[in-house]
Amino acid sequence: MSHPVLIAGQWRPAREAGTFHAVDPRTGESLPGEYPVSRWEDCDEALRAASHAAADLRRLPSETRAAFLDEYARRIESRKEELAETASGETGYPVSPRLADVELPRTTDQLRQAAAAARDGSWAMPTIDRARKIRSHLAPIGPVCVFGPNNFPFAFGSVSGGDFAAAIAAGNPVLAKGHSSHPSTTRLFAEEAFVAALETGMPHSAVQLVYRLSHSDGERLVSDRRVGASAYTGGRHSGLALKRAADAAGRPFYAELSSINPVVVLPGALRERLDAIVDEFTASCLMGTGQFCTNPGLILVLEGSESERFIERAAERFRAAPSGTLLSEGVGRTLVSSLGTWVRAGAHTVVGNASSVSAGYSLANTLMRVTGAAFLERPAELQTEAFGNASLVVVAHDAAEAKHVIDVLDGNLTGCVYSARNGEDESLYDALAPALRRHVGRLLNDKMPTGVAVSPAMQHGGPFPATGHPGFTAVGIPASLRRFGALECYDGVRDHRLPPSLRDANPTGAWRWVDGVWTQGQLG
Amino acid sequence: MSHPVLIAGQWRPAREAGTFHAVDPRTGESLPGEYPVSRWEDCDEALRAASHAAADLRRLPSETRAAFLDEYARRIESRKEELAETASGETGYPVSPRLADVELPRTTDQLRQAAAAARDGSWAMPTIDRARKIRSHLAPIGPVCVFGPNNFPFAFGSVSGGDFAAAIAAGNPVLAKGHSSHPSTTRLFAEEAFVAALETGMPHSAVQLVYRLSHSDGERLVSDRRVGASAYTGGRHSGLALKRAADAAGRPFYAELSSINPVVVLPGALRERLDAIVDEFTASCLMGTGQFCTNPGLILVLEGSESERFIERAAERFRAAPSGTLLSEGVGRTLVSSLGTWVRAGAHTVVGNASSVSAGYSLANTLMRVTGAAFLERPAELQTEAFGNASLVVVAHDAAEAKHVIDVLDGNLTGCVYSARNGEDESLYDALAPALRRHVGRLLNDKMPTGVAVSPAMQHGGPFPATGHPGFTAVGIPASLRRFGALECYDGVRDHRLPPSLRDANPTGAWRWVDGVWTQGQLG
Repeated sequence: MSHPVLIAGQWRPAREAGTFHAVDPRTGESLPGEYPVSRWEDCDEALRAASHAAADLRRLPSETRAAFLDEYARRIESRKEELAETASGETGYPVSPRLADVELPRTTDQLRQAAAAARDGSWAMPTIDRARKIRSHLAPIGPVCVFGPNNFPFAFGSVSGGDFAAAIAAGNPVLAKGHSSHPSTTRLFAEEAFVAALETGMPHSAVQLVYRLSHSDGERLVSDRRVGASAYTGGRHSGLALKRAADAAGRPFYAELSSINPVVVLPGALRERLDAIVDEFTASCLMGTGQFCTNPGLILVLEGSESERFIERAAERFRAAPSGTLLSEGVGRTLVSSLGTWVRAGAHTVVGNASSVSAGYSLANTLMRVTGAAFLERPAELQTEAFGNASLVVVAHDAAEAKHVIDVLDGNLTGCVYSARNGEDESLYDALAPALRRHVGRLLNDKMPTGVAVSPAMQHGGPFPATGHPGFTAVGIPASLRRFGALECYDGVRDHRLPPSLRDANPTGAWRWVDGVWTQGQLG
Repeated sequence: MSHPVLIAGQWRPAREAGTFHAVDPRTGESLPGEYPVSRWEDCDEALRAASHAAADLRRLPSETRAAFLDEYARRIESRKEELAETASGETGYPVSPRLADVELPRTTDQLRQAAAAARDGSWAMPTIDRARKIRSHLAPIGPVCVFGPNNFPFAFGSVSGGDFAAAIAAGNPVLAKGHSSHPSTTRLFAEEAFVAALETGMPHSAVQLVYRLSHSDGERLVSDRRVGASAYTGGRHSGLALKRAADAAGRPFYAELSSINPVVVLPGALRERLDAIVDEFTASCLMGTGQFCTNPGLILVLEGSESERFIERAAERFRAAPSGTLLSEGVGRTLVSSLGTWVRAGAHTVVGNASSVSAGYSLANTLMRVTGAAFLERPAELQTEAFGNASLVVVAHDAAEAKHVIDVLDGNLTGCVYSARNGEDESLYDALAPALRRHVGRLLNDKMPTGVAVSPAMQHGGPFPATGHPGFTAVGIPASLRRFGALECYDGVRDHRLPPSLRDANPTGAWRWVDGVWTQGQLG
């Protein structure tokens, strides 16, 4: 008997097209708990319920969803141990220092930041033109489908993560499609979310969950007329297939796809602090077995003895470090395949590069290298993402070649430049950083890209194919909420018919753009 | 010898795939002036030049583009008579009261508002998190292709209109694709823009122009990797073909497509002020021969004697008013075809509905009617846009049926509700307006949708298929600039390497979101 799905305010049996089990990646064995693959009927019923929930949410004060997000965060904390143990079993991540004390607090912090944003209302950028009697703001876009990834079962989880928090805070019901690798974790979250929704007076269908869908039902879902928008975090191939379907139907689709996160390490920096940089690189590349969207997958250095020393020391560290557990056999197979692509395109193994996944889904930490000239001959293959504990060092002959390497890069979430503190790399920085800037969402100085702060100034996004639109971020509040807003304008509409946040009064003290000035005041 | 194109800082002969002439719609005769259809080589060269111009623009202070926009506005005014006369010949619009004294001042006002926005910098929403040392803002997205429509040769023109102004103000070069119906008007604008660019120190390729492309080259253009984004205003079929190509390549594509702009006229309003509403409707529907994106194409009323009187009076006015000139034979043919679709779907002619376009591209003013029940049987056909001087009245049996009619509407730019001033329509308003709200970008009370104010609070956009994304507006400053910005984040980047608008100093007094507060101050 498979677990029920959460649809239209009820945990009820799925209309099943099949079932699946999660797998413990440390043993390769199936975990208890049978989960359903839903047929289209489940989506259809969920969308019908979500449409009603969306209309209901519009009528409720934003305080309701803020209270829900706060209560949900509290409930997550009260079930912390069970969540961390369950997720550890499904992902191979340690309970500590990862799940219980890093990812879970980050998750509840996001939910609470989203609650504060919903309560205050500034995220919606209320804009008032008094002379012309025109007012507008970002209003809820409609039911949001969230597709979570395998690698952050909490902080990017379909029913717990940043997309979920942002969509709800912006006033939209969420239809979550859990990731097949951690259904029990997702179920625990949905249980708490549902109870929190009931307790805080949210529409019963504000949170719904299906565990798995066929690819074609996924495409049908994101392109359904009743969907306001979808958010997807995951692999490029699946993401682009969903994007194509959503685009054709004119439904906004926010995708966070793959990224290799180039890191440029300039020679002055290496001369100044080689060991520290090797430490930072090794930690960033191998942490969580390298399974981060912002994993440093490409290191660009200039020919020279300090670069050779960097590669040598990094290789020692890669060799010495234990190779962690990968999330699934599939992740391991894809990683092996990516490394094979690199080798066929001219990369040389410095350390690692096992040709098969060992028991417990683990692969030797891998560092490869290639010349800038070789990279420029096969830039597409050598930019293949190797999701996991692997990185490619590109050794450019000189600054001009390094610039060419940067010029052919695809869009990425992040790009870093390490440079000497004493200023000796400044002209190299000036030659390379503007080119790198154009290819990345977040440009870092002297730090590795892993660790995505939940900051209002964050950009966790970037040019295609890192995402589908460079103007949006998946992390950071209030900006991430704006993805789930439709710009709604009121022209000559009588004051009592306006939504509360656009009336003259401004009880929440939201920041509003009034006649060319940002103000928290009320009008009149 | 065909007119030269403006590419890479030169007026030079096109790589021609053919030539064309504009046609005077009042006579049907070809106008003097042969214009080229460009081959792909022209686009390729323009894109190469635009890439360099984009990099150059990033290095220039925003004052440069502000000065350019101001100087360009001044030059347009100094060539006002020639522009208005030329456009009148190509569009059939009167020099006055339309081109010289309405559309031209609107155009220069937009350019000047865009200049002010560029100068001040608030549009980019600089965001600073001091504790985490993360800063971000909207930075230029890259070269922008602008495809202008036939119906606003100035205010939405590819090299003069709102998209052009917004793209330039946001720091991007523009590659304009003129509309084939008014090439001489476009040429005059490009001449002035180019001189203004040279005089104000803009990159020589900041403004480029081709007149016409094959469909496949258009699709190749918007999907080229060197393009930052494209903006299109025009018909649905061509727009969706371009959107498909751009989407597949992950290039943002802002489309303003067709819209029928439903207007709900409640019975109390008709009892209160029938004649005034008939006046407003007739003027709005027939002005400019109805060739507005926000033309009121669908009027929804409830069964009753006041609605019958409304139809009768409006029909009298439609019959009495001269039928204006349509922009082209193609516009006339499409209008005839749309009216045919309405009739086949069950609509009845109240007045007008000629079956062919008379000499001078003119068609009788047309009003049709259909019952709500019939509308609900063929909603797709009866929502066919009839671009021109025609409108369809839907007579719903009761409020419930009116609500159903609204529920099946596609996304539109605007929706209006006329209601009694004395409050007697309030419950009907409450029953219908929330449904209408979800289908439109701009909701109006007691006024017709034509007349799109250039207001910061404007939404000239809306749900698909009115546009491709409901979060953006094509009119209104600063919001329209944000379409052409990429969210760029700086994480731990040394202060002197930050773009000026993200440093501690804030010489332009831009509004910045600093640690959760909007402020014009400097930091330190």
